[in-house]
Amino acid sequence: MDAPPRSLDERLRDTAALLSATGADTWVATASAAGEAYLVPLSFGWTGEAVVLVTERRSPTARNLIAKRGARLAFGGTRDVVMVDGELAGEPAAVPDADAELVEVFVTQSGWDPRPMGDAADYDVFAVRPVGVQAWREGNEIAGRTLMRDGEWLGPVDVR
Amino acid sequence: MDAPPRSLDERLRDTAALLSATGADTWVATASAAGEAYLVPLSFGWTGEAVVLVTERRSPTARNLIAKRGARLAFGGTRDVVMVDGELAGEPAAVPDADAELVEVFVTQSGWDPRPMGDAADYDVFAVRPVGVQAWREGNEIAGRTLMRDGEWLGPVDVR
Repeated sequence: MDAPPRSLDERLRDTAALLSATGADTWVATASAAGEAYLVPLSFGWTGEAVVLVTERRSPTARNLIAKRGARLAFGGTRDVVMVDGELAGEPAAVPDADAELVEVFVTQSGWDPRPMGDAADYDVFAVRPVGVQAWREGNEIAGRTLMRDGEWLGPVDVR
Repeated sequence: MDAPPRSLDERLRDTAALLSATGADTWVATASAAGEAYLVPLSFGWTGEAVVLVTERRSPTARNLIAKRGARLAFGGTRDVVMVDGELAGEPAAVPDADAELVEVFVTQSGWDPRPMGDAADYDVFAVRPVGVQAWREGNEIAGRTLMRDGEWLGPVDVR
């Protein structure tokens, strides 16, 4: 609680860094058609406009993303967190059929390449576009935590 | 990916340690009555039978817990994770009215005491009992990740 709260600009910069971090995971919370919460950590990529996820089509996360077209994602740690409310952008596609640029962003940033896998066709590529973003560290950063509202960043941010 | 997968006993021991860790947070995923996923990090305590959470009654997490009586919790990091599917045990109560033992477990373990707060009555205490638990580190630990099924630990575990 000792560090002073970061400015909007600092939070935007730190958020861009977390979204662009290599070899990291994001916590992906989704809800099922029946309304049950699901949560799992996944590798990710960041195109500057969307978070790219790759997961098995039969997994709860894939099913929920398709059913609800939304997810809430957490980046960073519990005391240096970026929370993203996101909407599914476009339609998911199997790894071999997916937009090559999306897959390339994912592979380069995550360090995991699903393309050579024998069952790559069982994995879907999802693009999740942020519509709301918040960032905070400790209690003194709850005020001012909103960085994006209704899909609009509240300040300039170099997201790549 | 290099470390060999842990045995069931090792995972049970490590899980007990994560659930009993002091000053840590858990990721709490809930679903709203409308079926939207919510996710937030919260301080916690562990009684040996239930995870104790304290949060504002008007927060989405509190509302969702009350509406759905369930949550999915993550403990540890994305590559050393314990996932808990939990059910709300009993009824939540405002901090000043809550079971003193639950509150004591929470305060001692989390290091945060909500009782002296001027608005303590606006915070509810929740007990979330695990019904399913999984623990894994890397891909080679996906097999054997289930530690509790239908509320029963699959091996002896010293949970306190």
